[in-house]
Amino acid sequence: MSGPVGIEPVAGLPEIGPGDPLGRLIAAAAAPRGGDVVVIAQKVVSKAEGRQRRLAGVEPSARARSLAAGLGKDPRLVELILAEARRIVRAERVLIVETHTGLVCANAGIDSSNVPGEDEVLLLPADPDASARRLRAEIGTATAGRVAVVISDSFGRPWRVGQTDVAIGCAGLDPLDDRRGSPDRDGRELRATEVAIADQIAAAADLCRDKAAGLPVAIVRGLGDRVTAADGPGAAALRRAREADLFR
Amino acid sequence: MSGPVGIEPVAGLPEIGPGDPLGRLIAAAAAPRGGDVVVIAQKVVSKAEGRQRRLAGVEPSARARSLAAGLGKDPRLVELILAEARRIVRAERVLIVETHTGLVCANAGIDSSNVPGEDEVLLLPADPDASARRLRAEIGTATAGRVAVVISDSFGRPWRVGQTDVAIGCAGLDPLDDRRGSPDRDGRELRATEVAIADQIAAAADLCRDKAAGLPVAIVRGLGDRVTAADGPGAAALRRAREADLFR
Repeated sequence: MSGPVGIEPVAGLPEIGPGDPLGRLIAAAAAPRGGDVVVIAQKVVSKAEGRQRRLAGVEPSARARSLAAGLGKDPRLVELILAEARRIVRAERVLIVETHTGLVCANAGIDSSNVPGEDEVLLLPADPDASARRLRAEIGTATAGRVAVVISDSFGRPWRVGQTDVAIGCAGLDPLDDRRGSPDRDGRELRATEVAIADQIAAAADLCRDKAAGLPVAIVRGLGDRVTAADGPGAAALRRAREADLFR
Repeated sequence: MSGPVGIEPVAGLPEIGPGDPLGRLIAAAAAPRGGDVVVIAQKVVSKAEGRQRRLAGVEPSARARSLAAGLGKDPRLVELILAEARRIVRAERVLIVETHTGLVCANAGIDSSNVPGEDEVLLLPADPDASARRLRAEIGTATAGRVAVVISDSFGRPWRVGQTDVAIGCAGLDPLDDRRGSPDRDGRELRATEVAIADQIAAAADLCRDKAAGLPVAIVRGLGDRVTAADGPGAAALRRAREADLFR
């Protein structure tokens, strides 16, 4: 499988708020074709799903207050992070947790980059794979042929500087390309075993999306043979069980 | 900065061996244009640089033999891995090291996926950023306008299943996009701070390259405003100092 791949940002999407029919709005703005992969930044998915929270309404627990004091964070934000987390991975200088859906990220992925005086933060979608499946169905009804959906977010990672976009949800695409045992030209076994295609698609889409210009959606073309009839296992397949993580 | 991005695999590159003028061969096969980013898989760079090693000629140390026994690996391979490493990160089930150039990866990036009976393995380039600068100069002399070069390899990562391609070397491109302080549409500070553009380019290029079909080079178009006159800091800028790694 090899051939040109094209990535195009989608212009013309309105500002998204709670309850907005995001899939239909994307279909109208992007006019996707069969075989397209629609990559959607987490932020608009969370906004459409009403995942905004006001810090003013949060009562921090004693545990949140204690952690917040050590980290120099707002205890109400820490309370929200703890509510999204099933495990604290690190709480020293930064707060890295594993979310209830198994994502390991700083601050449970909560976007708290609010302007002074505002207190609204944005949680990740409660179930990003379910969001991807729903968005795929919505976009699919407006599109001839099948599309896939990837929901992306920018995550930091150990060992390397800088964030990259990864797939926190997907539907209609096998997130892993199993190259185990595929011989290369020399007849050797390939060293690369399983390739995280969905993460690579998320990273590629970010190359053309300028978040600062408010372009949260991109279309990736040329990967039609990866788009499946079934929704598939979702980005859950990319979350490594703690006990199977040889790098930890 | 936003607009369409295109990725094209480069066909017609011959099999590469030690001493081959890789940059000139790529320029001839790819005919890159000014503003292109040329993404080259580590394997062909290593081959051109004569980084093949025969296990038959390796005498394992006592330390290599001891580690190899615990890991079920060939002690001669472990000897080569140790020679490429400045630090062992993990030696339990897998051997993860930090290389002399600061890359954290399994087996020091050594490709040992040889067929039974063969004993040739392939080391990473000794200095991938220097390789990228040299290849950029070679490709540049055959090209009108400036190009950038990224040398990619497939790395596993903590917490997530599957490998993604990352930049182990680059030239003519700032590997990090500093989005700190860029306000988004709402006037908020962006949560994403520094984006590892070079890693995202490497990941994107892998989407169109089928390694099994022997296409180790891809051209990424549409990122011309990221291509710089200077070679820049290289992928060394993506290697996080151990003490600054909040995820470890």
